[in-house]
Amino acid sequence: MAELVGNCLIGQSGAPSAVNNASVAGIVTEALNHGCIEEIYGALNGVAGLLHEDIVDLAAESQQAIRGLSYTPGAALGSCRIRLKTSQDFERALAVIKAHNVRYYFHIGDGDAQDTASKLAETARNQNYELRVIGVPKTIDNDLPVTDHCPGYGSVAKYIATTVRELALDADATGAGDLVTIIEVMGRNTGWLAAASSLGKRRENPNDPPHLIYVPEVAFSDEKFADDVRRVLKREKHCVVVAGEGLVDKDGNYVAVETSDASGAAQFGGVSDHLKHIVESQVGSKVRVARLGVAQRAAAHLGSKTDAEEGFLAGQAAVRAAVNGESDKMVTLLRGETDQYSCETGLTSLAGLVGNVKRLPREWINEDGVSLNYQFHRYALPLIQGEVSVPFDNGLPTYAKLARETVDKTLPAYEG
Amino acid sequence: MAELVGNCLIGQSGAPSAVNNASVAGIVTEALNHGCIEEIYGALNGVAGLLHEDIVDLAAESQQAIRGLSYTPGAALGSCRIRLKTSQDFERALAVIKAHNVRYYFHIGDGDAQDTASKLAETARNQNYELRVIGVPKTIDNDLPVTDHCPGYGSVAKYIATTVRELALDADATGAGDLVTIIEVMGRNTGWLAAASSLGKRRENPNDPPHLIYVPEVAFSDEKFADDVRRVLKREKHCVVVAGEGLVDKDGNYVAVETSDASGAAQFGGVSDHLKHIVESQVGSKVRVARLGVAQRAAAHLGSKTDAEEGFLAGQAAVRAAVNGESDKMVTLLRGETDQYSCETGLTSLAGLVGNVKRLPREWINEDGVSLNYQFHRYALPLIQGEVSVPFDNGLPTYAKLARETVDKTLPAYEG
Repeated sequence: MAELVGNCLIGQSGAPSAVNNASVAGIVTEALNHGCIEEIYGALNGVAGLLHEDIVDLAAESQQAIRGLSYTPGAALGSCRIRLKTSQDFERALAVIKAHNVRYYFHIGDGDAQDTASKLAETARNQNYELRVIGVPKTIDNDLPVTDHCPGYGSVAKYIATTVRELALDADATGAGDLVTIIEVMGRNTGWLAAASSLGKRRENPNDPPHLIYVPEVAFSDEKFADDVRRVLKREKHCVVVAGEGLVDKDGNYVAVETSDASGAAQFGGVSDHLKHIVESQVGSKVRVARLGVAQRAAAHLGSKTDAEEGFLAGQAAVRAAVNGESDKMVTLLRGETDQYSCETGLTSLAGLVGNVKRLPREWINEDGVSLNYQFHRYALPLIQGEVSVPFDNGLPTYAKLARETVDKTLPAYEG
Repeated sequence: MAELVGNCLIGQSGAPSAVNNASVAGIVTEALNHGCIEEIYGALNGVAGLLHEDIVDLAAESQQAIRGLSYTPGAALGSCRIRLKTSQDFERALAVIKAHNVRYYFHIGDGDAQDTASKLAETARNQNYELRVIGVPKTIDNDLPVTDHCPGYGSVAKYIATTVRELALDADATGAGDLVTIIEVMGRNTGWLAAASSLGKRRENPNDPPHLIYVPEVAFSDEKFADDVRRVLKREKHCVVVAGEGLVDKDGNYVAVETSDASGAAQFGGVSDHLKHIVESQVGSKVRVARLGVAQRAAAHLGSKTDAEEGFLAGQAAVRAAVNGESDKMVTLLRGETDQYSCETGLTSLAGLVGNVKRLPREWINEDGVSLNYQFHRYALPLIQGEVSVPFDNGLPTYAKLARETVDKTLPAYEG
């Protein structure tokens, strides 16, 4: 295989996470090891940067800043929710790529994002332009297929399990008889995040909070919910409920949909209010609601070291794969076979990812539908191990900020 | 002064905080140093335990558990929202105190709680029963008079400043043009908590997020708010707003009151929805809301070391004061006069505390009404210094749990 010499470009897409930037750090760090990669560029605001030729020079960043990305939440290059839709969009993106002699494109994102990466690779092939496209998985939702888990999940799982444990201690302290605490977590169509709250239980005590965990993989029923709460309140002083935002009933309809955004996608956030209403009207208990919201995915101060390291590793692996001639693939995380947790990287075809959502296996959920068994714990516990050591200055975590030195534009302005 | 020999009793009252239990640890640790204190008891669920004679033996707890209290959120003895109201209530409480030969009573709580402590002391005086009552301040609201600040405030200030910084990074990453992030924080009648978000700004850049901070000390106006947001969006890519839950308009009416609880006290939580509505209808921007809720006061994993140490110190000081013959006083925190922050303890009369709320000084707020000046920073920054080192086990913080060995009851059951 002839060595492909040229520049590399990184794009971030979709919702930020605590370790999204760790993958950027992994790519930049590894790219510097390969002579065939000349310049290291970043696209500002994902595909928006590709369209508008908003490109920055990542090799010009300080080593301090790049190292700091490993514990900085958000998306240091900016992300976006827009997609490349028309063939004109893809051709414009490719024109920008060609104009900057980009031969390696790394796309950090969720399932939808990887679809974009796949189509960009196809556009390049059609134009006989040699471009190696490698996707790096990133989603707190943990719902990408093929990969054992996704960078971003371990940190949010750690945050949720910790926060639920702390909220349970607070509720336990109130002394009020039958308080019901309802904690709403993210997870659009899968229960990976809600299930993570289960990691806070002590192994020897299945009656530890959270007492009831509702996931979208189990059909939700108002009646069963009220019964579940009554059952817990008979046994315990108070009841802690964790619910995924995307719960559905037996017909597959969302239990609570608040509004839809401009693109028509459902915006969640109403589940906790729905559950609150049921408890107040049918059980008659006092209710306290906590919606963890965006803080979940931004709380890098409580990041999982394992997760951050794997985010970095996935970035490094993407560069190695591309340099080795791979393209149109996404990096995957592979778990070792032994009891001692280990993680290596693999590759999977981008084409196989689209529209393919990995749900929580039903056999990991107990028959009661509101608790997780040892199979989930064995899966998830290794992913929250270790604490990211974020440097504190004057009492607060200091996160990295890129200088974002812009690369001169060479093309006419985009008219989209 | 003749030495007063007898047992001591600790009660926790009001809303929990990250360092409420640190004061318990301080009291227990110091009490062991004084031979005149024989048994060390805790009242379960505050004054409810006093009425029901629910008392536990704190000297029987492991040293590990007592040490762990210094970083454990909630209220390890349980708290309660009920108050001693009638003279019968106080006489019953005193009967329980007498039955267990309690001569030292330590009451950890906010302003209302200290009122209870004061009346309990009075009841004892009226019956010529020698009882030394010392209050230990505790409120995340930081609104107690006389004391420079309250244990509990530094930790929640650190959590708010950190979380607002993280949410700002997340918002900055979205790439959407004019996103407005509204973060609602606690603080019933004072702006100490909302103001704390200001600590996340870099000194050299007053335009750092949070861009707009609304506190109850400044009359809120819908029109000014919309103007403020428009002004920020002209200058910045996005706008981060922090609002205290208890904002009031120029007539002193709450901007948003959700419901009232059984006692008739206003329950807050609606301010962010009100602000969201104004932005959507008058500014026309996209809005994202985060309500930090109870997680604020429970997030001991991000506790301030200074705060936890001062919580412990306040507990120790309470014991020393009582042993030295003081009674009917609350421990205060006194700030040293020099630029280098230092903190000692003092005492103030319980009687002077009731109904006396300390508000954010108007001169610490800039004329724009939405930012804090150097005087606030000089006050608050020392309080968030240092990180509590919570031990992690299997990826999660491990908090202490008391064994709560009960002390035999000697009185007829309470019939309240």
